[in-house]
Amino acid sequence: MTKLNESRWWIMNQKELEQLVIKNKSYCSEGQNAHYIPALAKVNPNQLGITLYNIKTRDMLSAGESSVKFAIESISKVPALLLAIEDNGLSNVLNHINTEATGFSFNSPLNMEINHDKHPLNPFVNIGAIETTSLIQGSSPDDCYSRLLSFIKEICHDNTISLNEEIYQSEAKTGDINRSLAYYLKGNNMLSKEVEGVLEVYFKQCSLNVTTENIAMMASVLANKGIKPWDNKRLISEESATLVKSVMTTAGLYDESGEFSAHVGIPGKSGVGGGLMGVSPNQFGIGVFSPPLDKSGNSLAGVRLLKDVVTKLHLNIFD
Amino acid sequence: MTKLNESRWWIMNQKELEQLVIKNKSYCSEGQNAHYIPALAKVNPNQLGITLYNIKTRDMLSAGESSVKFAIESISKVPALLLAIEDNGLSNVLNHINTEATGFSFNSPLNMEINHDKHPLNPFVNIGAIETTSLIQGSSPDDCYSRLLSFIKEICHDNTISLNEEIYQSEAKTGDINRSLAYYLKGNNMLSKEVEGVLEVYFKQCSLNVTTENIAMMASVLANKGIKPWDNKRLISEESATLVKSVMTTAGLYDESGEFSAHVGIPGKSGVGGGLMGVSPNQFGIGVFSPPLDKSGNSLAGVRLLKDVVTKLHLNIFD
Amino acid sequence: MTKLNESRWWIMNQKELEQLVIKNKSYCSEGQNAHYIPALAKVNPNQLGITLYNIKTRDMLSAGESSVKFAIESISKVPALLLAIEDNGLSNVLNHINTEATGFSFNSPLNMEINHDKHPLNPFVNIGAIETTSLIQGSSPDDCYSRLLSFIKEICHDNTISLNEEIYQSEAKTGDINRSLAYYLKGNNMLSKEVEGVLEVYFKQCSLNVTTENIAMMASVLANKGIKPWDNKRLISEESATLVKSVMTTAGLYDESGEFSAHVGIPGKSGVGGGLMGVSPNQFGIGVFSPPLDKSGNSLAGVRLLKDVVTKLHLNIFD
Amino acid sequence: MTKLNESRWWIMNQKELEQLVIKNKSYCSEGQNAHYIPALAKVNPNQLGITLYNIKTRDMLSAGESSVKFAIESISKVPALLLAIEDNGLSNVLNHINTEATGFSFNSPLNMEINHDKHPLNPFVNIGAIETTSLIQGSSPDDCYSRLLSFIKEICHDNTISLNEEIYQSEAKTGDINRSLAYYLKGNNMLSKEVEGVLEVYFKQCSLNVTTENIAMMASVLANKGIKPWDNKRLISEESATLVKSVMTTAGLYDESGEFSAHVGIPGKSGVGGGLMGVSPNQFGIGVFSPPLDKSGNSLAGVRLLKDVVTKLHLNIFD
Repeated sequence: MTKLNESRWWIMNQKELEQLVIKNKSYCSEGQNAHYIPALAKVNPNQLGITLYNIKTRDMLSAGESSVKFAIESISKVPALLLAIEDNGLSNVLNHINTEATGFSFNSPLNMEINHDKHPLNPFVNIGAIETTSLIQGSSPDDCYSRLLSFIKEICHDNTISLNEEIYQSEAKTGDINRSLAYYLKGNNMLSKEVEGVLEVYFKQCSLNVTTENIAMMASVLANKGIKPWDNKRLISEESATLVKSVMTTAGLYDESGEFSAHVGIPGKSGVGGGLMGVSPNQFGIGVFSPPLDKSGNSLAGVRLLKDVVTKLHLNIFD
Repeated sequence: MTKLNESRWWIMNQKELEQLVIKNKSYCSEGQNAHYIPALAKVNPNQLGITLYNIKTRDMLSAGESSVKFAIESISKVPALLLAIEDNGLSNVLNHINTEATGFSFNSPLNMEINHDKHPLNPFVNIGAIETTSLIQGSSPDDCYSRLLSFIKEICHDNTISLNEEIYQSEAKTGDINRSLAYYLKGNNMLSKEVEGVLEVYFKQCSLNVTTENIAMMASVLANKGIKPWDNKRLISEESATLVKSVMTTAGLYDESGEFSAHVGIPGKSGVGGGLMGVSPNQFGIGVFSPPLDKSGNSLAGVRLLKDVVTKLHLNIFD
Repeated sequence: MTKLNESRWWIMNQKELEQLVIKNKSYCSEGQNAHYIPALAKVNPNQLGITLYNIKTRDMLSAGESSVKFAIESISKVPALLLAIEDNGLSNVLNHINTEATGFSFNSPLNMEINHDKHPLNPFVNIGAIETTSLIQGSSPDDCYSRLLSFIKEICHDNTISLNEEIYQSEAKTGDINRSLAYYLKGNNMLSKEVEGVLEVYFKQCSLNVTTENIAMMASVLANKGIKPWDNKRLISEESATLVKSVMTTAGLYDESGEFSAHVGIPGKSGVGGGLMGVSPNQFGIGVFSPPLDKSGNSLAGVRLLKDVVTKLHLNIFD
Repeated sequence: MTKLNESRWWIMNQKELEQLVIKNKSYCSEGQNAHYIPALAKVNPNQLGITLYNIKTRDMLSAGESSVKFAIESISKVPALLLAIEDNGLSNVLNHINTEATGFSFNSPLNMEINHDKHPLNPFVNIGAIETTSLIQGSSPDDCYSRLLSFIKEICHDNTISLNEEIYQSEAKTGDINRSLAYYLKGNNMLSKEVEGVLEVYFKQCSLNVTTENIAMMASVLANKGIKPWDNKRLISEESATLVKSVMTTAGLYDESGEFSAHVGIPGKSGVGGGLMGVSPNQFGIGVFSPPLDKSGNSLAGVRLLKDVVTKLHLNIFD
């Protein structure tokens, strides 16, 4: 990957991006790291990093903590959904999971996550994400996880992505609410695989270590209609990329999904590890990282930094 | 308004649009007119019309029942919000009403329409729409209504828009659930004006007669960042136009808002009169009309026709 | 009414009752007067009174502030239900209102007060109480209220009971949540009369001034199977008295109904004016008063004093 | 146990009871057996049996299928609660579980079963019953179950009570909703033991085979303030017996708890095996059995038969 050639059509240079990081870094002290597992609580909260990848020029622009590894957490719901669609076809996935908008909290009462027609509301509420992961094909949980890890390495263009074992052990150990959700699916005949095997894959997918560069690359495939910008090869269908960007818009940031769309205005997906993915269709893939979260579980400084970048580069899709 | 010059950059001509209308007209028999008031129930269900207005060429393309008058109903929530923002400033409106995503039904339990912080979830759930209307300035309900009617005439570029008195009488007479919502707002100190006055304006705004041409013109102002394409004069702020398109995307079609975004992919707003507004940013304003509704209250044939047009013209904002 | 002849079968004398009042008076400082209307907020909080009426001996025993007048508030739901039953017959009333148990808050979301079958859950949630009041017969709201007032005077054996005009004006002025409930009933075709007329009666019935003596007499009619103990004449049917005692047990104290039954163990009904009615079947009618409320809206010292009396006199119906 | 001496103070003889069984047997065809497990679905639906045990005379009166074995199901929540109280003391149990009234369905959304203060609403909603079972002391799940079985044998005065292995296997296999509830408790730090061990005991307690005679004996201990009428020895504390009768009254029949109290009027507890326990304080223990259930999950003919018996013997505690 070549570094940014500042003479090109970019309207933002390295220095400007660094200034936006500095401007928003003070917000780190206004949020709190996720504290439900020690491995997340102990991360240095005073970090803010961002990477933009331009799908036309193949330039990458980063500032702040862009190479620090962090737990991908709920951002993994995006590649899991993409792989489930590749494995089963879009219409088969949509037979299991709806794509309805939500303004629900990340710990919303489970029954609100289920529609009247006994489908999870969408793939980004927890109960829908567990269902999604169960649709990934494989002969065993290990096989499913291995296939998903390979897919994530490919969509992030980074073969070194690996499991954070400490996070995984904590997720598995403290994951009883997710177990409750999975057994609720099972008890309602919405889960065809065994609960513990599905959860093993789910907890592992949430525990992968990534960087803002990884997230920006993944986002750039979505921005580029499913084609990897770096080698011009199609990874996922255009239809799938379009649908996922839509679901990110109506349900990507928990109970701030609508507010994020109204005030930032690009498809986004957050994780409680402090990561935030933004997609600017046909232009940029964006990865952001800052551990302290607001009360809804979204990166506090990260959302603000992304908003500034979107404004500066005129990326709002509703404008 | 000049008619379409088919030699220009359009990729769809009159005949193609008419064929899409014919193709989708059969869906009229699969839905049901709104039946809570007689005036809506008795409308001829076998109607499907559409108008596209190209903001760059100022061409208008229509097919089917594009000049039939129908009750605007919930589509009026859009101009009411725009005027409330013009009257009070965006930030003051957002102090009263959130912009959170919803997949709620048009008759959802009222308490779900209220956030934990005692604000309506967004301006398009009924309780938020009543609050929005209350923010329109005026010395009396008559004055508020008169100002809103003038605004709607201007944004629809049609001075002949007027009240359907039969619809209004029915709405006012059968509007006890809306009265319940309004008194709930009042009882929670969220409504500064008198309930009956606010409801009078609200019932009137829902009872205006419009055509798909009117709706397409209104949509074109949103598509054109707040500037009326036909005279190049700004009517609303760009910021306001952008925000409203975002809220349409996350909450414009009741409990099908997310599905509509996932499967159609442009900002939309529906009404139980069978109308449907679509906005293609920087390209088209679109108005659709077909009275029979699906179970969520959205025009059944209308949504399908709009989806075909969006696909044909490659308008999906997430693509 | 003769005063207690202490030589009789009573197992509690005046002094013992006074000691229980003294013991529990300190709880007055742990609660808070209802504050939604000024007339309730300004009542002297340091009051605790009680009256027991023995239906066999016709003795009355009082201690503390037993002759202080206070607003009857939700205790009025009991005589309103009794009169509605006398007017329509029990089965007709039960065609309109269920008798299901609730542990709901006094300001619970209204939709939870409505059963799946479109009936209010029971006559003591607000929406059920408004429905109940609407069933009282009369040619006008004035007539309905006049009939209810007469009935309350008779069941309380006190012709001087009258409206607290200040409370009534406040209730009517601040009653928008109740208006919301009433219009919700109306909009769901569950209310046959005009909303404002029903609410006028409802607000008035809540605003009557009573004493613990009044409440004890009303309770004694329920305890005595519908026959007024003081003149041995039947006022209400035995069936009606039995049903009402049951509903008091499963739904009489808002979201503390079950806790009250588990820890006090007699049918009870509370009001936010600080009143509390207890019925010991075939033995006593009991009235209690102390303005400061717990978080559920029940008289804090009053519940404790009643529990002590029930324990001392072995009145728990589940024992 | 001596059979009824009809010359004594009973006001009902064998023949009268048999007539009431005959009268109500036709209701068997109006309900449906529980069908979530085959072992319950295949039970002969055309059965109706009843046993009354008089705690003063020690007479037992039975009619219909009173010696047919059926699955105890949710009636086991009563002895489990009693043993948990004996093991931990009443106040310690009440630190874990509330005693609030419910009109909730047996498959209500789990979050409604949890109070705002993170306690199960009461011991008879499923989530509260699982919590209750977890409080039974023992060195292992086997030990807990063994202790509970011994307790049930003693309170039912029948050493032959044993597990229905087919029911147990089905309950364990299809118990994913209960697993979901248990993991929800665990994830909210409300369950100190391992989920699967607690569920093993819970599924076993639900799968015991009992008769109406067994249920009547258990009920008679509650009716007799905790003393076994047949040997005059105390088994449980009076305080515990009183509390349990209260909770049965406000929450014993799922979302018909209030209706049952209003129309039958004694503490009751039902099970989806068709069993129904009634307690007439200081008079009778009553067991009823008829497999077909109403929509709320209560024995349809059983409730009607019990109502007739209560009416005939004047047992309504609210009268």
